[in-house]
Amino acid sequence: MATENRRIIVASIPKGELKESHFELQSAPVPQANEGEVLVKTLYMSLDAANRAWMQGPSYRDAVVSGDVMPTFAIGRVVQSNDVSVSAGSVVEVEGVWADYFVADANALKIVPDVQPLSHRLSVRGIAGKTAYFGLLNVGRPEAGETIVVSAAAGSVGSLVGQIGKIKGCRVVGIAGGAEKCAWLVDELGFDAAVDYKSGNLFKELKDACPDGVDIYFDNVGGKMLETVLFQMNLKGRIVCCGAISQYDTENPMGPRNLPGLVVVKRLRMEGFIAMDYPEYEAQADSDLTAWAADGKLIVIEDIVDGLENAPKALIGLLNGENRGKRMVCVAPD
Amino acid sequence: MATENRRIIVASIPKGELKESHFELQSAPVPQANEGEVLVKTLYMSLDAANRAWMQGPSYRDAVVSGDVMPTFAIGRVVQSNDVSVSAGSVVEVEGVWADYFVADANALKIVPDVQPLSHRLSVRGIAGKTAYFGLLNVGRPEAGETIVVSAAAGSVGSLVGQIGKIKGCRVVGIAGGAEKCAWLVDELGFDAAVDYKSGNLFKELKDACPDGVDIYFDNVGGKMLETVLFQMNLKGRIVCCGAISQYDTENPMGPRNLPGLVVVKRLRMEGFIAMDYPEYEAQADSDLTAWAADGKLIVIEDIVDGLENAPKALIGLLNGENRGKRMVCVAPD
Repeated sequence: MATENRRIIVASIPKGELKESHFELQSAPVPQANEGEVLVKTLYMSLDAANRAWMQGPSYRDAVVSGDVMPTFAIGRVVQSNDVSVSAGSVVEVEGVWADYFVADANALKIVPDVQPLSHRLSVRGIAGKTAYFGLLNVGRPEAGETIVVSAAAGSVGSLVGQIGKIKGCRVVGIAGGAEKCAWLVDELGFDAAVDYKSGNLFKELKDACPDGVDIYFDNVGGKMLETVLFQMNLKGRIVCCGAISQYDTENPMGPRNLPGLVVVKRLRMEGFIAMDYPEYEAQADSDLTAWAADGKLIVIEDIVDGLENAPKALIGLLNGENRGKRMVCVAPD
Repeated sequence: MATENRRIIVASIPKGELKESHFELQSAPVPQANEGEVLVKTLYMSLDAANRAWMQGPSYRDAVVSGDVMPTFAIGRVVQSNDVSVSAGSVVEVEGVWADYFVADANALKIVPDVQPLSHRLSVRGIAGKTAYFGLLNVGRPEAGETIVVSAAAGSVGSLVGQIGKIKGCRVVGIAGGAEKCAWLVDELGFDAAVDYKSGNLFKELKDACPDGVDIYFDNVGGKMLETVLFQMNLKGRIVCCGAISQYDTENPMGPRNLPGLVVVKRLRMEGFIAMDYPEYEAQADSDLTAWAADGKLIVIEDIVDGLENAPKALIGLLNGENRGKRMVCVAPD
């Protein structure tokens, strides 16, 4: 068994843009699992805009502070267990850290079937899938014929939101960066239209793409894009507040103009959520998502970066929108 | 019967602060009711922050434009009817205008019992009562023990929201302008605490008044006050977006800082509504409100200004927060 454990710590908390220099790769001994704990070998680490949000302060979890090994949602294999409830060799989902190995409490992990591809546990059957599913269906509550707009549409969540919207009979319009991504959303993923926010004319292009207005805006971005969509929302529209990527690099950013005025006059609902908010619907969600993926209604897009050492760069790239579909790091081939 | 009809037109649409000079009192003949219409004598006219919002552009109703007789929700008595469904002498609730007399479509009015005081139809049994009731109960969905904060707490809606919150077993904190109003909220209306936004230290005083954070913010104001309360919201908190008085005098005002970031990380729900959104619950609302008022659980505060000619000044005063409870204009003693 290995004795060296590479790990990546947060060397300092960014005040503005996140850079590779905010991280530091260190070598340490493989940690020891005590009674009730297991030692996990990291296979895949999820990369999410949420990683960046954790550095901004406490949220649904404690803030990440300088000196912490960067936390991550991970898929790993148990290499040593000091708890009767977990066998060595099990595949687990767990909050780990950016490291080859980490110790986890046996009560704080979930044993999952050892079914390939394990990467699906981080995409369609993982947080991305549940975020798209619960956000669109439980928060947004679409009805057939409604118009859904989703930002960061080529991303892990957005690419699923649009496809689930089509399954539910809605008109789906994606917002993404660049003509190539937009064409891909329409041609490969079946979106009805896609609008390039880099074109400089988002308001008009969105209006052309949504002739009946917007009933649901699945917002991964916040900021100016939210402001633009707000003006095109229909009465009783819903804004699914999933993320605010555009704001993570800014301290105390101003909110979109005309809030809450437009919420009042259009009787909008803006609602935040996380994928863990609907435990009673988890089984249904996993069943639906797995079935849709199996019969090709849902195309699962994964963007796998190899090597622990590439995690900082891959996260920064994700925040800059360079990924297509679910980005993750493969730390060790299984 | 009178032949002169005084009416108040909107002479120009305000770009900033609303002033009396934006209105003009005119004399005109009493209008003629055609087939299917009735002539109504105005008794009481409701004054609402919404009157100002209508001048800002189309909302759930058409915008008010320059030259319009100012629209208003009114209680009146039918003096002449050209429709079999309405008898002369009936008391009606109807959208009228700032005038001694106006013509209404017989299909667009509601005949109400001729029960004194008719002013209650504009306060506890009117839009103010339903706005408070539906906003707090159907949108905010309070649970006993939660903390509710309401702004414009001494106003028509706010004074009812706080009292309904107490009936539902919540801790209720009002925000109002001036120490005297604040004392009145606690001493006369039974609020647990009240905070003077003019004190210059709203954040700290609100924090002291809400040691367990804020579960529901009933927002009549928007702007900086919303920004301040947002930071004190608890996870899964709800912001009932009822009005944005602070923004009506501003074109394209900036939104509160950290929106939608705080909505995401705290999984908040911000939701707009109007009193007409819950027709299926209207009977229950009226029954509850009437019973609470009758047995003294709900103190009904009315602020009645006499004289049609005083409507502009009374509306401006309302927007400046000078009223206590429901402000209305008595146009004619019944």
